[in-house]
Amino acid sequence: MKKNLFFISMFVACTAVAQQKDYSIKDINFTQVHLTDNFWLPRIEINRTATIPASFERCENTGRVKNFVMAAEKKGKFCTVYPFDDTDIYKTIEGAAFSLATHPDKKLDAYVDSLIVIIRNAQEPDGYLYTARTIDPVNVGSWVGKERWEKERELSHELYNAGHMYEAAVAHYLATKKRNFLDIAIKNADLVCSVFGPGKRSVAPGHEIVEMGLVKLFRITGKQEYLNTAKFFIYARGQYNGYDPKNTDSWKNGSYWQDHKPVVQQDEAVGHAVRAGYLYSAVADVAALTGDDSLTKAIDKIWENVVSKKLYIQGGIGARGDGERFGANYELPNNTAYNETCASIANVYWNHRMFLLHGDSKYMDVLERTLYNGLISGVGLDGKSFFYTNAMEVRNGFSHNDIERERSGWFQCSCCPTNVCRFIPAVPGYMYAQKESDLYVNLFISSTANLVINNKPVQVLQQNNYPWEGDLRFTIQTAKANSFKLLIRIPGWALNTAVPSDLYSFQKNTGVKPTIKINGEPVTYEIQNGYAVIDRAWKKNDEVLVMLPMEIRQIIANEKIKDNIGKLALQRGPIVYCAEWADNNGKAGNIIIPAGGAFSTEYKPMLLNGVMTLKTEVPVVSITGTESITTERKTVTMIPYYSWANRGKGEMTIWFPSQIKDIEILSK
Amino acid sequence: MKKNLFFISMFVACTAVAQQKDYSIKDINFTQVHLTDNFWLPRIEINRTATIPASFERCENTGRVKNFVMAAEKKGKFCTVYPFDDTDIYKTIEGAAFSLATHPDKKLDAYVDSLIVIIRNAQEPDGYLYTARTIDPVNVGSWVGKERWEKERELSHELYNAGHMYEAAVAHYLATKKRNFLDIAIKNADLVCSVFGPGKRSVAPGHEIVEMGLVKLFRITGKQEYLNTAKFFIYARGQYNGYDPKNTDSWKNGSYWQDHKPVVQQDEAVGHAVRAGYLYSAVADVAALTGDDSLTKAIDKIWENVVSKKLYIQGGIGARGDGERFGANYELPNNTAYNETCASIANVYWNHRMFLLHGDSKYMDVLERTLYNGLISGVGLDGKSFFYTNAMEVRNGFSHNDIERERSGWFQCSCCPTNVCRFIPAVPGYMYAQKESDLYVNLFISSTANLVINNKPVQVLQQNNYPWEGDLRFTIQTAKANSFKLLIRIPGWALNTAVPSDLYSFQKNTGVKPTIKINGEPVTYEIQNGYAVIDRAWKKNDEVLVMLPMEIRQIIANEKIKDNIGKLALQRGPIVYCAEWADNNGKAGNIIIPAGGAFSTEYKPMLLNGVMTLKTEVPVVSITGTESITTERKTVTMIPYYSWANRGKGEMTIWFPSQIKDIEILSK
Repeated sequence: MKKNLFFISMFVACTAVAQQKDYSIKDINFTQVHLTDNFWLPRIEINRTATIPASFERCENTGRVKNFVMAAEKKGKFCTVYPFDDTDIYKTIEGAAFSLATHPDKKLDAYVDSLIVIIRNAQEPDGYLYTARTIDPVNVGSWVGKERWEKERELSHELYNAGHMYEAAVAHYLATKKRNFLDIAIKNADLVCSVFGPGKRSVAPGHEIVEMGLVKLFRITGKQEYLNTAKFFIYARGQYNGYDPKNTDSWKNGSYWQDHKPVVQQDEAVGHAVRAGYLYSAVADVAALTGDDSLTKAIDKIWENVVSKKLYIQGGIGARGDGERFGANYELPNNTAYNETCASIANVYWNHRMFLLHGDSKYMDVLERTLYNGLISGVGLDGKSFFYTNAMEVRNGFSHNDIERERSGWFQCSCCPTNVCRFIPAVPGYMYAQKESDLYVNLFISSTANLVINNKPVQVLQQNNYPWEGDLRFTIQTAKANSFKLLIRIPGWALNTAVPSDLYSFQKNTGVKPTIKINGEPVTYEIQNGYAVIDRAWKKNDEVLVMLPMEIRQIIANEKIKDNIGKLALQRGPIVYCAEWADNNGKAGNIIIPAGGAFSTEYKPMLLNGVMTLKTEVPVVSITGTESITTERKTVTMIPYYSWANRGKGEMTIWFPSQIKDIEILSK
Repeated sequence: MKKNLFFISMFVACTAVAQQKDYSIKDINFTQVHLTDNFWLPRIEINRTATIPASFERCENTGRVKNFVMAAEKKGKFCTVYPFDDTDIYKTIEGAAFSLATHPDKKLDAYVDSLIVIIRNAQEPDGYLYTARTIDPVNVGSWVGKERWEKERELSHELYNAGHMYEAAVAHYLATKKRNFLDIAIKNADLVCSVFGPGKRSVAPGHEIVEMGLVKLFRITGKQEYLNTAKFFIYARGQYNGYDPKNTDSWKNGSYWQDHKPVVQQDEAVGHAVRAGYLYSAVADVAALTGDDSLTKAIDKIWENVVSKKLYIQGGIGARGDGERFGANYELPNNTAYNETCASIANVYWNHRMFLLHGDSKYMDVLERTLYNGLISGVGLDGKSFFYTNAMEVRNGFSHNDIERERSGWFQCSCCPTNVCRFIPAVPGYMYAQKESDLYVNLFISSTANLVINNKPVQVLQQNNYPWEGDLRFTIQTAKANSFKLLIRIPGWALNTAVPSDLYSFQKNTGVKPTIKINGEPVTYEIQNGYAVIDRAWKKNDEVLVMLPMEIRQIIANEKIKDNIGKLALQRGPIVYCAEWADNNGKAGNIIIPAGGAFSTEYKPMLLNGVMTLKTEVPVVSITGTESITTERKTVTMIPYYSWANRGKGEMTIWFPSQIKDIEILSK
């Protein structure tokens, strides 16, 4: 408890810069929330015990650490594939720091310190830190320019490496109070700010994240220059004259890295989805910190574009594999869906900031959809097997491209595993937020949160079995009566809104509405911006019970998504379901789900670490021999999408034909 | 008869230039062959009575003629879409000329003369003829350069227009002996030769055909400069420095118009298929006329590439719609097949010339496959409805692109209808060829051919019911005994070779071989280069009977053609079959044809102008309601592919799954 209070005061201090503009809503740091649940706590624990150690081990085994050692010695040959491989170490340290913040571990702490020494030794005297050049500045690979920053626009990722380092260093400083990593980051950031800026060098960073990193450094140090440079990088976009706007190749017209237009003129999500998500997150930060409304307007439009035209039902973004990028509007094919895990993480970062800007629950609705579905699908239940991409369907032998069917331990480009590593421990940080004395509850996870409202300590206890059950119990612990508004997000899905757009909709509405009881008494409540507002003088042990209707909802897609015409998907609570081979006689592509059918639910504690399954009897196609097809009604079992591909390789689908209009005979 | 003899002497005179190198094999002009059959004669007749008049009418109605009128007046605004719309008039005149050559028609002759006056008036004083510029040389559209020839490489088609004009003018001169069109062409060709050549301007013509046209003018006039300039244009390819060889965009690396490498270094068919076919045809001409073996070697390699990796089973070429071009090796998808009708015509031109170069029947095998299938599929039985592209399959509502499902009267870019117009009347010209006293018989069409062998007149009478029956009767009419070799092509398919490569193969061989009788007596015969050689002193009424086995052959594709794995197609004689909706309860995509099944044939004289149909009982998928699929054995009827889409819009397929391994449920 003492520890927790220490962290509260530290974070409050760190984020309070005098008279600095900022988000009107402040997030509650993950260190203030102590989870007790069965869904996220085991994930954070496996991240701590499996993902982080495995990640460090792989950083060592693949030569990523060796690159830093060689850079310190200025000899050898860069021994991994990409110059941005440095970031895997930074991101794993960031994950370790988040873990240390809530789970002290001397051995891990010491190991991280030893890595920081190796990192510091690789830093050049003026702060430059980029092993791919420092090892041998003469024989640089094709991604690395002959001069520093020369290829930053297209290839080198020098500022991408810097950005991830700043994020990691800030996390490490906040978790440990040690400045050993932070000082390295500051030295590098000072160099970056001395090189780039008005009247100095300009570039739109090829892979954004330095902007978010600089903002985090600014929050810690208060150095205005960091914020200015972040803003400078955002405004540097759309200024380069070397593109050919008529060229449809996004590398040639700059749209691949969102450099085709000034940000304030952008209104559609284009190019590499992770870069885009990091840019939009940084734009939100800078808009909040500088009060720049033109930036806010741009990301508002881009957000509308994504949620109405470019979002998969499982919350993934970036439909196209060629370039890991957004497709055209409504280009959301199932059989070639890319949906990079990192892009889901970026989408959470961005939507969280959109909420902090606007205080509307629709952003958290998108965040929750991504978080519970297309993001955690990227990591296996063992914590050490990953999907780089997140498929929408898999057919035995008949897929139209080489989508991943099995999880891997690591990838040559291993951004996703290390991004998972740093993301998972911070999940409790998305649960609460405060605007003065208003307390927002955004996510429902059994936990104890230690807050300060009206300068008085308040503890909020959550008890639920979310996402499997809809009863959400909140207990307020306060020494003395304390008047404040509790704003509990009523998820869009509970009000029959699949997504905040017409991209997907629920097929029918049972009309059951969420109900709320306070201390056992039903109350009427008002909904403002998607939140049930409960404004009262809270006394010790006041209990709020929110009952969300957990019906099984059939989703239909906008007809402009060609692949989903005549199909439906299933959702219960925040969870999107799929059928996987292992529960359905080896197949999934042969299942028809007629609209309006009846389903039963069954919680299976031993299956996939405990999941709520759906069951229904529907027509299933059987092939006998090589010439005969029949349909018979069979019981079909569906599992949460996030839990697929934990039992070997086989068919999976999210979208089901709801009737047979025709068939294509596959004869391979 | 007198008329025919006149033409014989005229054509013999025209092609005999003293000591000029040329094809060692000479084709027999179509005017020397008088058809009497039920397959081609009605097509030529409908081309004469429907296609040619409709074509002229459309040239008038769409403003194509008006463009010439405005050019003469040097005022107005080019009123069609493409600067190469001029060629539709030239090509229709070419078709009309071919028709006049065998079917005098004073009214048509006078109408053509009136058009030639309009064309002559549009020609500029120095011979330049290109209405898109002459009408208004200042306000030229984006396809037309500010200066003459400026955009010839990429867009203007100035030399393309010239080439079609030469072809038409030569045909008109040969048919009518009138020089009115020929003189216009010569004046233009003299200009072209004065502008382009060594030490003068150089360009690789953007859309080839001027090379073929110049060769034809050379054959008529004997002017060596025309041949030299044709050769110059061929050697101009691969010389331009403005391309980026690393750019994969074929417009940027020059491969779209076969300009990425010198022709002698080319070994793969790439880029726009019609342009390619015209280039390879011209290369054959120039190789023959100049003895340039390096050119022959290049087209030999390219031909091997096409027949082993880029040929559809119906003889079409040019798989990709984006750019009407060749795909990669083995890229022969069914649902997006482009197969432009013009490309089939170009493929016939090219293969005919390859035969004249090499004397091997394999070229005529490819020619026959294209001619009887993917070429004549491009024109409806009414002679005035056309396909620009030739589909391989159509599904009701489930096609993956916008392939044509119905024939059109005309297209904005109407190259295909007018190409059909000029191609059909010349078909008898592909039947025979002579190498000194050796007489090649390449196509089997009931007819009388008037030939001169060993300086003596010889008439060859063909009587058969090809392509429906395999008995081919040849009667030699000669006043006195005449010793010569008769070389009758034994089609590859009759010897169990689907195509001269491993791209397609017949699934089983019944072992029945073609047999030959002379005057009723079976003879043994030798096959040389694919020809049955019958060397004897021919007497009047000697009769040769060739009996080709007309079994129904199941074709399987090389496994590298992904779309055809597990599928088979059907061929009988030279005819490739398809199943069309109209004969099969409205569907075609639901038919399974197990390998090795039994078929029956039935000739239906009233169906589609008379076709041999195939029938078989096979598993067919039925969908009842929206939830039930079954397979039942049903009788399925197949029709010749060329005759599809003459009874309205619906499903069609050439390739059939031979077993059900899996299905894709279509739910639209």
